[in-house]
Amino acid sequence: MHQAIDNHIVETRGQGLFEVTRTLRSFVASTRIETGLVTAYVRHTSCSLLIQENADADVQTDMMGFFGRLVPEGMDWLVHTTEGPDDMPAHIKAALTQTSIGIPISGGRAVLGTWQGLYLFEHRRRPHRRELVFHIIGE
Amino acid sequence: MHQAIDNHIVETRGQGLFEVTRTLRSFVASTRIETGLVTAYVRHTSCSLLIQENADADVQTDMMGFFGRLVPEGMDWLVHTTEGPDDMPAHIKAALTQTSIGIPISGGRAVLGTWQGLYLFEHRRRPHRRELVFHIIGE
Amino acid sequence: MHQAIDNHIVETRGQGLFEVTRTLRSFVASTRIETGLVTAYVRHTSCSLLIQENADADVQTDMMGFFGRLVPEGMDWLVHTTEGPDDMPAHIKAALTQTSIGIPISGGRAVLGTWQGLYLFEHRRRPHRRELVFHIIGE
Repeated sequence: MHQAIDNHIVETRGQGLFEVTRTLRSFVASTRIETGLVTAYVRHTSCSLLIQENADADVQTDMMGFFGRLVPEGMDWLVHTTEGPDDMPAHIKAALTQTSIGIPISGGRAVLGTWQGLYLFEHRRRPHRRELVFHIIGE
Repeated sequence: MHQAIDNHIVETRGQGLFEVTRTLRSFVASTRIETGLVTAYVRHTSCSLLIQENADADVQTDMMGFFGRLVPEGMDWLVHTTEGPDDMPAHIKAALTQTSIGIPISGGRAVLGTWQGLYLFEHRRRPHRRELVFHIIGE
Repeated sequence: MHQAIDNHIVETRGQGLFEVTRTLRSFVASTRIETGLVTAYVRHTSCSLLIQENADADVQTDMMGFFGRLVPEGMDWLVHTTEGPDDMPAHIKAALTQTSIGIPISGGRAVLGTWQGLYLFEHRRRPHRRELVFHIIGE
């Protein structure tokens, strides 16, 4: 049994979904592990991870639209406002999605479905430098 | 250390929670792994996974009721509408729940709590053939 | 490759976020595993797990405020009401957050970001005795 761990930086350009499927696939391929489990983990609380459709970009537009309506800026009862109007909504959006996602490996590849992509979901308005950690175990 | 991986098909009958706890338990038992980690993964973006109460079926009714109200069909700002009025709401419901769930194994069994069941949460109106992948590692 | 599993009890004092970061760190340190994966799992369906900011307590206040508004008590269409007005909202809040979180281990420590803490998120009004399971694999 083997394992490997690697850090990746994603430079986000404000709110949006940034696909990291290729980064994940390259990492898995580099380890030559045939069967196992890969875990993607994001070291932040105002961005998150999401597996979503990567075929039609409209899905990403609507995903942003929904989360922006569900957790709008300007909710007047918020008390954590010192880091800007988009900060607490960003923490809430992160809580509603994922910080960590585990994906089985079979035949040397993550078993993502045909239309599944792995995304870093940036919830802050300004660009951020985000740290992603990949861990793999298997053989 | 050993590992195993298996695919399971769940034939859904439209929106609802389809319990796969027995499938998970059978898979774990078949591997004879006593201590480890089992990961359930669904290869789709319009259904998801959920651990929820399996004692009172009313919990499932209300879960459906809540998600149907939180993410209704007919939100007039949606742009991804070509696959039907239930498609984009399905992607959003999947984003709000899980694509992957890891459960520790102890004494040869997944450590699900007394009332916990593992469900495939179908978000589309029509029946679908859904692929679930289970991975286990341990000894 | 080694693994370990441990159970921890968290005595909650009603709705709120109960930090278990130190418990997680102690468990990881006790195993002397340098590189690996730790999984936190909660054996209940009316509380959940969350990774969130542990710097400003206001974030926790607002997190509670948001979930309380998104899933209020007294939704008149609920059918599962026999366990009290806070029970079904608790199940829904658990569905919207996590039952299981996997965190890579590097250099003998969980790779939590600077501001990340691991919390048990209690959704019931009364104090509860909650069971948390930690599993670690690595070497």
